[in-house]
Amino acid sequence: MTPTGPAFSVFALLGLPEFRPGDDLAGILGDALAGVAEDGDIIAVTSKIVSKAEGRIVAAADREDAITAETVRVVAERPLADGSGTTRIVENRQGLVMAAAGVDASNAPDGHVLLLPEDPDRSARHLAEVLRNRLGIRVGVIITDTLGRAWREGQTDAAIGAAGVVVLQDLAGSADANGKTLQVTAPAIGDELAAAAELVKGKAGGRPVAVIRGLGHLVTDLDAPGARALIRDPARDMFRQGSAEAYRDGYDAGLAAR
Amino acid sequence: MTPTGPAFSVFALLGLPEFRPGDDLAGILGDALAGVAEDGDIIAVTSKIVSKAEGRIVAAADREDAITAETVRVVAERPLADGSGTTRIVENRQGLVMAAAGVDASNAPDGHVLLLPEDPDRSARHLAEVLRNRLGIRVGVIITDTLGRAWREGQTDAAIGAAGVVVLQDLAGSADANGKTLQVTAPAIGDELAAAAELVKGKAGGRPVAVIRGLGHLVTDLDAPGARALIRDPARDMFRQGSAEAYRDGYDAGLAAR
Repeated sequence: MTPTGPAFSVFALLGLPEFRPGDDLAGILGDALAGVAEDGDIIAVTSKIVSKAEGRIVAAADREDAITAETVRVVAERPLADGSGTTRIVENRQGLVMAAAGVDASNAPDGHVLLLPEDPDRSARHLAEVLRNRLGIRVGVIITDTLGRAWREGQTDAAIGAAGVVVLQDLAGSADANGKTLQVTAPAIGDELAAAAELVKGKAGGRPVAVIRGLGHLVTDLDAPGARALIRDPARDMFRQGSAEAYRDGYDAGLAAR
Repeated sequence: MTPTGPAFSVFALLGLPEFRPGDDLAGILGDALAGVAEDGDIIAVTSKIVSKAEGRIVAAADREDAITAETVRVVAERPLADGSGTTRIVENRQGLVMAAAGVDASNAPDGHVLLLPEDPDRSARHLAEVLRNRLGIRVGVIITDTLGRAWREGQTDAAIGAAGVVVLQDLAGSADANGKTLQVTAPAIGDELAAAAELVKGKAGGRPVAVIRGLGHLVTDLDAPGARALIRDPARDMFRQGSAEAYRDGYDAGLAAR
Protein backbone atom coordinates (compact mmCIF):
# COMPACT_ATOMS: atom_id res chain seq x y z
CA MET A 1 0.00 0.00 0.00
CA THR A 2 1.17 3.50 -0.75
CA PRO A 3 3.03 4.98 2.19
CA THR A 4 1.58 8.19 3.53
CA GLY A 5 3.53 11.11 4.86
CA PRO A 6 3.01 14.19 6.97
CA ALA A 7 -0.49 14.39 8.39
CA PHE A 8 -2.50 16.69 10.52
CA SER A 9 -6.03 16.85 11.83
CA VAL A 10 -8.44 19.65 12.62
CA PHE A 11 -11.38 19.50 14.99
CA ALA A 12 -13.79 21.98 16.51
CA LEU A 13 -14.51 22.47 20.19
CA LEU A 14 -18.16 22.13 21.11
CA GLY A 15 -20.11 23.54 24.00
CA LEU A 16 -18.34 26.86 24.41
CA PRO A 17 -20.54 29.53 25.99
CA GLU A 18 -21.76 32.71 24.33
CA PHE A 19 -19.09 35.28 25.18
CA ARG A 20 -19.81 38.66 26.76
CA PRO A 21 -17.73 41.74 27.49
CA GLY A 22 -15.41 41.14 30.42
CA ASP A 23 -15.40 37.36 30.07
CA ASP A 24 -12.03 35.75 30.77
CA LEU A 25 -11.63 34.24 27.33
CA ALA A 26 -8.18 32.80 28.05
CA GLY A 27 -9.43 31.18 31.25
CA ILE A 28 -12.51 29.73 29.58
CA LEU A 29 -10.47 28.38 26.69
CA GLY A 30 -7.94 26.99 29.15
CA ASP A 31 -10.75 25.10 30.89
CA ALA A 32 -12.14 23.89 27.58
CA LEU A 33 -8.75 22.74 26.31
CA ALA A 34 -7.62 21.00 29.51
CA GLY A 35 -7.36 17.32 28.74
CA VAL A 36 -7.97 18.04 25.05
CA ALA A 37 -4.98 20.07 23.83
CA GLU A 38 -1.63 18.41 23.21
CA ASP A 39 1.85 19.76 22.86
CA GLY A 40 2.32 21.29 19.41
CA ASP A 41 -1.36 22.03 18.83
CA ILE A 42 -2.37 25.24 17.10
CA ILE A 43 -5.55 26.82 18.46
CA ALA A 44 -7.57 28.78 15.89
CA VAL A 45 -9.92 31.28 17.52
CA THR A 46 -12.54 33.22 15.60
CA SER A 47 -12.04 36.95 16.11
CA LYS A 48 -15.73 37.38 17.00
CA ILE A 49 -15.34 35.81 20.43
CA VAL A 50 -12.13 37.75 21.10
CA SER A 51 -13.96 40.95 20.22
CA LYS A 52 -16.90 40.08 22.43
CA ALA A 53 -14.76 39.19 25.44
CA GLU A 54 -12.70 42.34 24.93
CA GLY A 55 -15.85 44.44 24.87
CA ARG A 56 -15.41 45.57 21.28
CA ILE A 57 -19.15 46.05 20.93
CA VAL A 58 -20.23 49.61 20.30
CA ALA A 59 -23.60 51.23 19.97
CA ALA A 60 -24.05 52.27 16.38
CA ALA A 61 -27.26 53.74 15.06
CA ASP A 62 -25.84 53.16 11.63
CA ARG A 63 -23.44 50.43 10.54
CA GLU A 64 -22.06 52.71 7.82
CA ASP A 65 -21.00 55.26 10.46
CA ALA A 66 -19.21 52.53 12.38
CA ILE A 67 -17.38 51.46 9.23
CA THR A 68 -16.30 55.03 8.60
CA ALA A 69 -14.95 55.28 12.15
CA GLU A 70 -12.84 52.15 11.68
CA THR A 71 -11.55 53.20 8.28
CA VAL A 72 -8.05 54.59 7.82
CA ARG A 73 -8.19 54.69 4.03
CA VAL A 74 -10.77 53.80 1.40
CA VAL A 75 -9.33 51.41 -1.17
CA ALA A 76 -12.35 50.88 -3.41
CA GLU A 77 -16.09 51.22 -3.26
CA ARG A 78 -19.03 50.56 -5.45
CA PRO A 79 -22.82 50.39 -5.10
CA LEU A 80 -24.29 47.03 -4.16
CA ALA A 81 -26.06 45.30 -7.02
CA ASP A 82 -29.40 45.46 -5.19
CA GLY A 83 -29.10 49.20 -4.56
CA SER A 84 -29.19 48.70 -0.80
CA GLY A 85 -25.90 50.40 -0.09
CA THR A 86 -22.23 50.43 -0.93
CA THR A 87 -19.47 47.85 -0.75
CA ARG A 88 -16.48 49.54 0.76
CA ILE A 89 -13.06 47.91 0.67
CA VAL A 90 -10.96 49.82 3.17
CA GLU A 91 -7.78 49.67 5.18
CA ASN A 92 -8.87 49.57 8.79
CA ARG A 93 -7.18 50.56 12.03
CA GLN A 94 -5.58 47.12 12.29
CA GLY A 95 -3.93 47.64 8.88
CA LEU A 96 -6.12 45.02 7.22
CA VAL A 97 -7.62 45.66 3.79
CA MET A 98 -11.12 44.24 3.95
CA ALA A 99 -14.77 44.87 3.25
CA ALA A 100 -16.63 47.01 5.77
CA ALA A 101 -13.46 47.46 7.88
CA GLY A 102 -14.28 44.25 9.70
CA VAL A 103 -17.36 45.84 11.30
CA ASP A 104 -19.91 43.11 11.94
CA ALA A 105 -23.54 43.86 12.69
CA SER A 106 -24.76 40.28 12.49
CA ASN A 107 -22.96 39.03 15.61
CA ALA A 108 -23.92 41.94 17.87
CA PRO A 109 -27.13 42.91 19.67
CA ASP A 110 -29.57 45.14 17.80
CA GLY A 111 -28.33 48.71 17.57
CA HIS A 112 -24.74 47.57 18.12
CA VAL A 113 -21.86 46.37 15.97
CA LEU A 114 -18.85 44.22 16.70
CA LEU A 115 -15.42 45.68 15.91
CA LEU A 116 -12.24 43.68 15.38
CA PRO A 117 -9.93 43.28 18.37
CA GLU A 118 -7.90 46.46 18.88
CA ASP A 119 -4.60 44.58 18.44
CA PRO A 120 -5.19 40.98 17.35
CA ASP A 121 -1.52 39.99 17.73
CA ARG A 122 -1.54 41.21 21.33
CA SER A 123 -4.77 39.30 21.95
CA ALA A 124 -3.23 36.15 20.45
CA ARG A 125 -0.11 36.54 22.54
CA HIS A 126 -2.11 36.86 25.73
CA LEU A 127 -4.11 33.76 24.86
CA ALA A 128 -0.99 31.78 23.97
CA GLU A 129 0.81 32.79 27.17
CA VAL A 130 -2.12 31.88 29.40
CA LEU A 131 -2.76 28.60 27.60
CA ARG A 132 0.91 27.58 27.69
CA ASN A 133 1.16 28.31 31.40
CA ARG A 134 -2.16 26.76 32.26
CA LEU A 135 -1.80 23.60 30.19
CA GLY A 136 1.95 23.15 30.54
CA ILE A 137 2.34 22.54 26.81
CA ARG A 138 3.56 24.56 23.85
CA VAL A 139 0.62 25.64 21.74
CA GLY A 140 0.33 28.27 19.03
CA VAL A 141 -2.64 30.59 18.66
CA ILE A 142 -4.13 32.24 15.61
CA ILE A 143 -7.04 34.65 15.61
CA THR A 144 -9.04 34.32 12.42
CA ASP A 145 -11.36 36.49 10.43
CA THR A 146 -12.99 36.21 7.05
CA LEU A 147 -11.56 38.16 4.12
CA GLY A 148 -12.69 38.68 0.57
CA ARG A 149 -10.07 38.57 -2.14
CA ALA A 150 -9.29 40.49 -5.29
CA TRP A 151 -10.04 38.54 -8.48
CA ARG A 152 -11.63 35.57 -6.78
CA GLU A 153 -15.16 34.89 -5.64
CA GLY A 154 -16.01 34.04 -2.09
CA GLN A 155 -14.16 34.58 1.13
CA THR A 156 -11.51 32.64 3.00
CA ASP A 157 -10.47 32.83 6.61
CA ALA A 158 -7.11 34.41 7.30
CA ALA A 159 -4.94 34.95 10.37
CA ILE A 160 -5.39 38.49 11.67
CA GLY A 161 -3.59 37.71 14.91
CA ALA A 162 -1.00 35.09 15.82
CA ALA A 163 1.41 34.11 18.58
CA GLY A 164 3.78 31.21 18.90
CA VAL A 165 3.22 29.96 15.37
CA VAL A 166 5.01 30.50 12.06
CA VAL A 167 2.81 32.76 9.92
CA LEU A 168 5.06 33.28 6.90
CA GLN A 169 7.57 30.63 5.93
CA ASP A 170 10.70 32.05 4.40
CA LEU A 171 11.86 29.70 1.66
CA ALA A 172 13.87 32.30 -0.27
CA GLY A 173 16.85 30.57 -1.79
CA SER A 174 15.57 27.08 -1.00
CA ALA A 175 15.78 24.40 -3.65
CA ASP A 176 12.91 22.35 -5.02
CA ALA A 177 12.97 18.59 -5.61
CA ASN A 178 15.01 19.17 -8.79
CA GLY A 179 17.57 21.28 -7.00
CA LYS A 180 16.36 24.49 -8.63
CA THR A 181 15.67 27.60 -6.63
CA LEU A 182 12.04 27.86 -5.64
CA GLN A 183 10.01 30.64 -7.18
CA VAL A 184 7.47 30.61 -4.41
CA THR A 185 9.36 31.99 -1.51
CA ALA A 186 6.90 32.62 1.27
CA PRO A 187 3.92 30.36 1.95
CA ALA A 188 1.45 32.29 4.08
CA ILE A 189 1.17 29.53 6.65
CA GLY A 190 -0.94 31.59 9.05
CA ASP A 191 -3.62 32.11 6.44
CA GLU A 192 -3.51 28.46 5.36
CA LEU A 193 -4.01 27.38 8.97
CA ALA A 194 -6.95 29.77 9.29
CA ALA A 195 -8.48 28.41 6.08
CA ALA A 196 -8.12 24.84 7.32
CA ALA A 197 -9.76 25.73 10.63
CA GLU A 198 -12.70 27.38 8.89
CA LEU A 199 -13.59 24.08 7.27
CA VAL A 200 -14.72 22.79 10.68
CA LYS A 201 -15.73 26.03 12.36
CA GLY A 202 -18.16 27.06 9.65
CA LYS A 203 -20.07 30.31 9.62
CA ALA A 204 -23.34 29.54 11.33
CA GLY A 205 -22.54 26.70 13.65
CA GLY A 206 -21.50 28.33 16.89
CA ARG A 207 -18.11 26.62 16.72
CA PRO A 208 -15.66 29.47 17.21
CA VAL A 209 -12.56 27.46 18.13
CA ALA A 210 -10.71 24.73 16.28
CA VAL A 211 -7.63 22.73 17.20
CA ILE A 212 -5.06 21.92 14.52
CA ARG A 213 -2.95 18.92 15.50
CA GLY A 214 0.11 17.43 13.87
CA LEU A 215 1.87 20.59 12.71
CA GLY A 216 3.96 21.12 15.81
CA HIS A 217 6.96 22.04 13.65
CA LEU A 218 5.12 25.31 12.99
CA VAL A 219 4.78 26.10 16.70
CA THR A 220 7.48 28.46 17.84
CA ASP A 221 8.50 31.04 20.42
CA LEU A 222 6.03 33.69 21.51
CA ASP A 223 8.43 36.34 20.26
CA ALA A 224 8.12 35.19 16.64
CA PRO A 225 6.40 37.65 14.28
CA GLY A 226 2.63 37.87 14.62
CA ALA A 227 0.04 38.11 11.88
CA ARG A 228 1.04 41.72 11.24
CA ALA A 229 3.82 40.17 9.13
CA LEU A 230 1.13 38.99 6.71
CA ILE A 231 0.07 42.54 5.89
CA ARG A 232 1.83 43.83 2.81
CA ASP A 233 4.07 46.83 3.09
CA PRO A 234 2.43 49.77 1.24
CA ALA A 235 5.60 50.16 -0.85
CA ARG A 236 5.04 46.66 -2.24
CA ASP A 237 1.27 47.00 -2.69
CA MET A 238 0.26 47.28 -6.35
CA PHE A 239 -3.42 47.55 -5.42
CA ARG A 240 -3.52 50.49 -3.05
CA GLN A 241 -6.62 51.75 -4.85
CA GLY A 242 -9.37 50.14 -6.84
CA SER A 243 -9.01 50.56 -10.59
CA ALA A 244 -11.89 53.04 -10.84
CA GLU A 245 -10.57 55.14 -7.97
CA ALA A 246 -7.03 55.25 -9.36
CA TYR A 247 -8.30 56.04 -12.84
CA ARG A 248 -10.42 58.90 -11.50
CA ASP A 249 -7.50 60.36 -9.56
CA GLY A 250 -5.33 60.07 -12.66
CA TYR A 251 -7.98 61.67 -14.83
CA ASP A 252 -8.27 64.62 -12.45
CA ALA A 253 -4.50 65.01 -12.42
CA GLY A 254 -4.37 64.83 -16.21
CA LEU A 255 -7.00 67.53 -16.53
CA ALA A 256 -5.19 69.71 -13.99
CA ALA A 257 -1.88 69.32 -15.84
CA ARG A 258 -2.99 71.64 -18.58
CA MET B 1 -13.79 16.80 29.00
CA THR B 2 -14.85 19.27 26.34
CA PRO B 3 -16.72 17.54 23.56
CA THR B 4 -15.22 17.97 20.14
CA GLY B 5 -17.11 18.34 16.91
CA PRO B 6 -16.54 18.08 13.19
CA ALA B 7 -13.07 16.87 12.35
CA PHE B 8 -11.01 16.16 9.30
CA SER B 9 -7.50 15.01 8.56
CA VAL B 10 -5.04 15.66 5.78
CA PHE B 11 -2.13 13.48 4.76
CA ALA B 12 0.31 13.36 1.88
CA LEU B 13 0.99 10.43 -0.40
CA LEU B 14 4.61 9.37 -0.49
CA GLY B 15 6.56 7.54 -3.16
CA LEU B 16 4.87 8.92 -6.26
CA PRO B 17 7.11 8.86 -9.33
CA GLU B 18 8.47 11.85 -11.21
CA PHE B 19 5.84 12.51 -13.89
CA ARG B 20 6.63 12.84 -17.60
CA PRO B 21 4.60 13.83 -20.67
CA GLY B 22 2.23 11.07 -21.67
CA ASP B 23 2.12 9.45 -18.23
CA ASP B 24 -1.29 8.12 -17.26
CA LEU B 25 -1.68 10.32 -14.20
CA ALA B 26 -5.17 9.05 -13.40
CA GLY B 27 -4.02 5.45 -13.60
CA ILE B 28 -0.96 6.06 -11.47
CA LEU B 29 -2.98 7.94 -8.84
CA GLY B 30 -5.59 5.17 -8.95
CA ASP B 31 -2.86 2.64 -8.15
CA ALA B 32 -1.46 4.83 -5.41
CA LEU B 33 -4.84 5.44 -3.82
CA ALA B 34 -6.07 1.84 -3.97
CA GLY B 35 -6.41 0.64 -0.41
CA VAL B 36 -5.73 4.16 0.85
CA ALA B 37 -8.63 6.33 -0.32
CA GLU B 38 -12.02 6.10 1.37
CA ASP B 39 -15.48 7.17 0.34
CA GLY B 40 -15.85 10.94 0.76
CA ASP B 41 -12.15 11.72 0.47
CA ILE B 42 -11.02 14.81 -1.41
CA ILE B 43 -7.83 14.36 -3.40
CA ALA B 44 -5.70 17.49 -3.77
CA VAL B 45 -3.32 17.29 -6.71
CA THR B 46 -0.63 19.86 -7.38
CA SER B 47 -1.04 21.33 -10.85
CA LYS B 48 2.64 20.69 -11.61
CA ILE B 49 2.16 16.95 -12.00
CA VAL B 50 -1.00 17.45 -14.06
CA SER B 51 0.92 19.78 -16.35
CA LYS B 52 3.80 17.36 -16.67
CA ALA B 53 1.61 14.36 -17.46
CA GLU B 54 -0.36 16.46 -19.96
CA GLY B 55 2.84 17.49 -21.68
CA ARG B 56 2.48 21.17 -20.86
CA ILE B 57 6.24 21.60 -21.03
CA VAL B 58 7.43 23.93 -23.76
CA ALA B 59 10.86 24.95 -24.91
CA ALA B 60 11.41 28.55 -23.97
CA ALA B 61 14.67 30.35 -24.50
CA ASP B 62 13.27 33.04 -22.32
CA ARG B 63 10.80 32.66 -19.44
CA GLU B 64 9.52 36.18 -20.07
CA ASP B 65 8.48 35.23 -23.62
CA ALA B 66 6.59 32.24 -22.27
CA ILE B 67 4.78 34.46 -19.78
CA THR B 68 3.80 36.85 -22.56
CA ALA B 69 2.41 33.96 -24.60
CA GLU B 70 0.23 32.81 -21.70
CA THR B 71 -1.00 36.33 -20.91
CA VAL B 72 -4.44 37.52 -21.94
CA ARG B 73 -4.25 40.83 -20.11
CA VAL B 74 -1.66 42.58 -17.95
CA VAL B 75 -3.13 43.62 -14.62
CA ALA B 76 -0.09 45.20 -12.98
CA GLU B 77 3.64 45.16 -13.27
CA ARG B 78 6.62 46.64 -11.56
CA PRO B 79 10.37 46.14 -11.52
CA LEU B 80 11.74 43.58 -9.07
CA ALA B 81 13.51 45.13 -6.11
CA ASP B 82 16.82 43.54 -7.14
CA GLY B 83 16.63 44.90 -10.69
CA SER B 84 16.65 41.40 -12.16
CA GLY B 85 13.40 41.75 -14.04
CA THR B 86 9.74 42.59 -13.68
CA THR B 87 6.92 41.19 -11.59
CA ARG B 88 3.94 40.81 -13.86
CA ILE B 89 0.49 40.16 -12.46
CA VAL B 90 -1.61 39.03 -15.42
CA GLU B 91 -4.80 37.31 -16.36
CA ASN B 92 -3.78 34.11 -18.07
CA ARG B 93 -5.47 31.86 -20.61
CA GLN B 94 -7.17 29.95 -17.80
CA GLY B 95 -8.76 33.19 -16.54
CA LEU B 96 -6.62 33.24 -13.41
CA VAL B 97 -5.05 36.47 -12.20
CA MET B 98 -1.61 35.52 -11.00
CA ALA B 99 2.07 36.36 -11.13
CA ALA B 100 3.94 35.22 -14.21
CA ALA B 101 0.76 33.73 -15.74
CA GLY B 102 1.48 30.51 -13.88
CA VAL B 103 4.57 29.85 -15.99
CA ASP B 104 7.04 27.87 -13.92
CA ALA B 105 10.68 27.48 -14.87
CA SER B 106 11.80 25.80 -11.65
CA ASN B 107 9.91 22.54 -12.19
CA ALA B 108 10.94 22.04 -15.82
CA PRO B 109 14.14 20.89 -17.53
CA ASP B 110 16.68 23.55 -18.48
CA GLY B 111 15.52 25.60 -21.45
CA HIS B 112 11.91 24.65 -20.80
CA VAL B 113 9.03 25.97 -18.74
CA LEU B 114 5.95 24.33 -17.32
CA LEU B 115 2.58 25.84 -18.23
CA LEU B 116 -0.65 25.36 -16.29
CA PRO B 117 -3.03 22.65 -17.50
CA GLU B 118 -4.97 23.87 -20.51
CA ASP B 119 -8.31 23.40 -18.74
CA PRO B 120 -7.80 22.49 -15.07
CA ASP B 121 -11.50 21.76 -14.46
CA ARG B 122 -11.49 19.28 -17.33
CA SER B 123 -8.34 17.68 -15.95
CA ALA B 124 -9.93 17.43 -12.50
CA ARG B 125 -13.06 15.90 -13.94
CA HIS B 126 -11.10 13.27 -15.81
CA LEU B 127 -9.18 12.38 -12.66
CA ALA B 128 -12.35 12.22 -10.56
CA GLU B 129 -14.14 10.03 -13.08
CA VAL B 130 -11.29 7.58 -13.37
CA LEU B 131 -10.70 7.45 -9.62
CA ARG B 132 -14.40 6.95 -8.84
CA ASN B 133 -14.68 4.14 -11.35
CA ARG B 134 -11.42 2.52 -10.41
CA LEU B 135 -11.82 2.72 -6.63
CA GLY B 136 -15.60 2.30 -6.49
CA ILE B 137 -15.94 5.20 -4.07
CA ARG B 138 -17.07 8.79 -4.34
CA VAL B 139 -14.07 11.09 -4.16
CA GLY B 140 -13.67 14.75 -5.04
CA VAL B 141 -10.63 16.17 -6.81
CA ILE B 142 -9.06 19.59 -6.65
CA ILE B 143 -6.09 20.73 -8.69
CA THR B 144 -4.06 23.26 -6.76
CA ASP B 145 -1.66 26.01 -7.59
CA THR B 146 0.01 28.74 -5.61
CA LEU B 147 -1.32 32.29 -5.84
CA GLY B 148 -0.13 35.58 -4.45
CA ARG B 149 -2.71 37.94 -3.03
CA ALA B 150 -3.40 41.64 -3.11
CA TRP B 151 -2.63 43.39 0.21
CA ARG B 152 -1.16 40.37 1.93
CA GLU B 153 2.35 38.96 2.00
CA GLY B 154 3.11 35.45 0.94
CA GLN B 155 1.24 32.98 -1.18
CA THR B 156 -1.49 30.46 -0.50
CA ASP B 157 -2.57 27.47 -2.51
CA ALA B 158 -5.91 27.76 -4.27
CA ALA B 159 -8.11 25.45 -6.33
CA ILE B 160 -7.59 26.11 -10.03
CA GLY B 161 -9.45 22.97 -11.03
CA ALA B 162 -12.12 20.93 -9.28
CA ALA B 163 -14.59 18.13 -9.86
CA GLY B 164 -17.05 16.43 -7.55
CA VAL B 165 -16.46 18.84 -4.69
CA VAL B 166 -18.19 22.01 -3.50
CA VAL B 167 -15.91 24.94 -4.32
CA LEU B 168 -18.09 27.87 -3.28
CA GLN B 169 -20.66 27.43 -0.53
CA ASP B 170 -23.73 29.56 -1.03
CA LEU B 171 -24.92 30.75 2.35
CA ALA B 172 -26.82 33.78 1.08
CA GLY B 173 -29.82 34.29 3.29
CA SER B 174 -28.63 31.80 5.92
CA ALA B 175 -28.88 32.73 9.57
CA ASP B 176 -26.05 32.78 12.09
CA ALA B 177 -26.18 31.38 15.63
CA ASN B 178 -28.17 34.46 16.72
CA GLY B 179 -30.72 34.07 13.95
CA LYS B 180 -29.40 37.07 12.02
CA THR B 181 -28.66 36.92 8.33
CA LEU B 182 -25.03 36.09 7.66
CA GLN B 183 -22.91 38.79 6.08
CA VAL B 184 -20.41 36.32 4.72
CA THR B 185 -22.30 34.56 2.03
CA ALA B 186 -19.86 32.41 0.13
CA PRO B 187 -16.96 30.61 1.77
CA ALA B 188 -14.46 29.70 -0.94
CA ILE B 189 -14.29 26.08 0.14
CA GLY B 190 -12.17 25.00 -2.82
CA ASP B 191 -9.44 27.44 -1.91
CA GLU B 192 -9.63 26.52 1.78
CA LEU B 193 -9.21 22.85 0.89
CA ALA B 194 -6.21 23.72 -1.29
CA ALA B 195 -4.68 25.74 1.53
CA ALA B 196 -5.14 22.88 3.98
CA ALA B 197 -3.53 20.44 1.56
CA GLU B 198 -0.53 22.70 1.06
CA LEU B 199 0.32 22.39 4.75
CA VAL B 200 1.36 18.78 4.15
CA LYS B 201 2.42 18.95 0.52
CA GLY B 202 4.91 21.76 1.02
CA LYS B 203 6.92 23.37 -1.71
CA ALA B 204 10.13 21.42 -1.84
CA GLY B 205 9.20 17.99 -0.60
CA GLY B 206 8.18 16.08 -3.67
CA ARG B 207 4.74 15.43 -2.15
CA PRO B 208 2.37 16.51 -4.91
CA VAL B 209 -0.80 14.77 -3.69
CA ALA B 210 -2.69 15.03 -0.42
CA VAL B 211 -5.82 13.30 0.80
CA ILE B 212 -8.39 15.28 2.81
CA ARG B 213 -10.57 12.97 4.88
CA GLY B 214 -13.65 13.70 6.93
CA LEU B 215 -15.32 16.35 4.78
CA GLY B 216 -17.44 13.99 2.71
CA HIS B 217 -20.39 16.40 2.96
CA LEU B 218 -18.44 18.57 0.51
CA VAL B 219 -18.14 15.77 -2.06
CA THR B 220 -20.78 16.06 -4.71
CA ASP B 221 -21.78 15.17 -8.24
CA LEU B 222 -19.27 15.51 -11.04
CA ASP B 223 -21.57 17.99 -12.73
CA ALA B 224 -21.24 20.51 -9.89
CA PRO B 225 -19.43 23.75 -10.81
CA GLY B 226 -15.67 23.48 -11.11
CA ALA B 227 -13.03 25.88 -9.89
CA ARG B 228 -13.90 28.29 -12.67
CA ALA B 229 -16.70 29.40 -10.33
CA LEU B 230 -14.02 30.82 -8.04
CA ILE B 231 -12.86 33.29 -10.68
CA ARG B 232 -14.53 36.65 -10.25
CA ASP B 233 -16.71 37.98 -13.03
CA PRO B 234 -14.96 41.03 -14.60
CA ALA B 235 -18.09 43.10 -13.93
CA ARG B 236 -17.60 42.50 -10.19
CA ASP B 237 -13.83 42.96 -10.20
CA MET B 238 -12.76 46.23 -8.56
CA PHE B 239 -9.09 45.47 -9.22
CA ARG B 240 -8.95 44.93 -12.96
CA GLN B 241 -5.80 47.03 -13.09
CA GLY B 242 -3.05 47.87 -10.65
CA SER B 243 -3.35 51.32 -9.11
CA ALA B 244 -0.43 52.72 -11.08
CA GLU B 245 -1.72 51.34 -14.37
CA ALA B 246 -5.24 52.69 -13.82
CA TYR B 247 -3.90 56.05 -12.71
CA ARG B 248 -1.74 56.29 -15.82
CA ASP B 249 -4.66 55.45 -18.11
CA GLY B 250 -6.80 58.00 -16.30
CA TYR B 251 -4.08 60.62 -16.56
CA ASP B 252 -3.75 60.08 -20.30
CA ALA B 253 -7.51 60.33 -20.71
CA GLY B 254 -7.61 63.50 -18.62
CA LEU B 255 -4.87 65.06 -20.72
CA ALA B 256 -6.67 64.09 -23.92
CA ALA B 257 -9.95 65.56 -22.64
CA ARG B 258 -8.58 69.06 -22.54
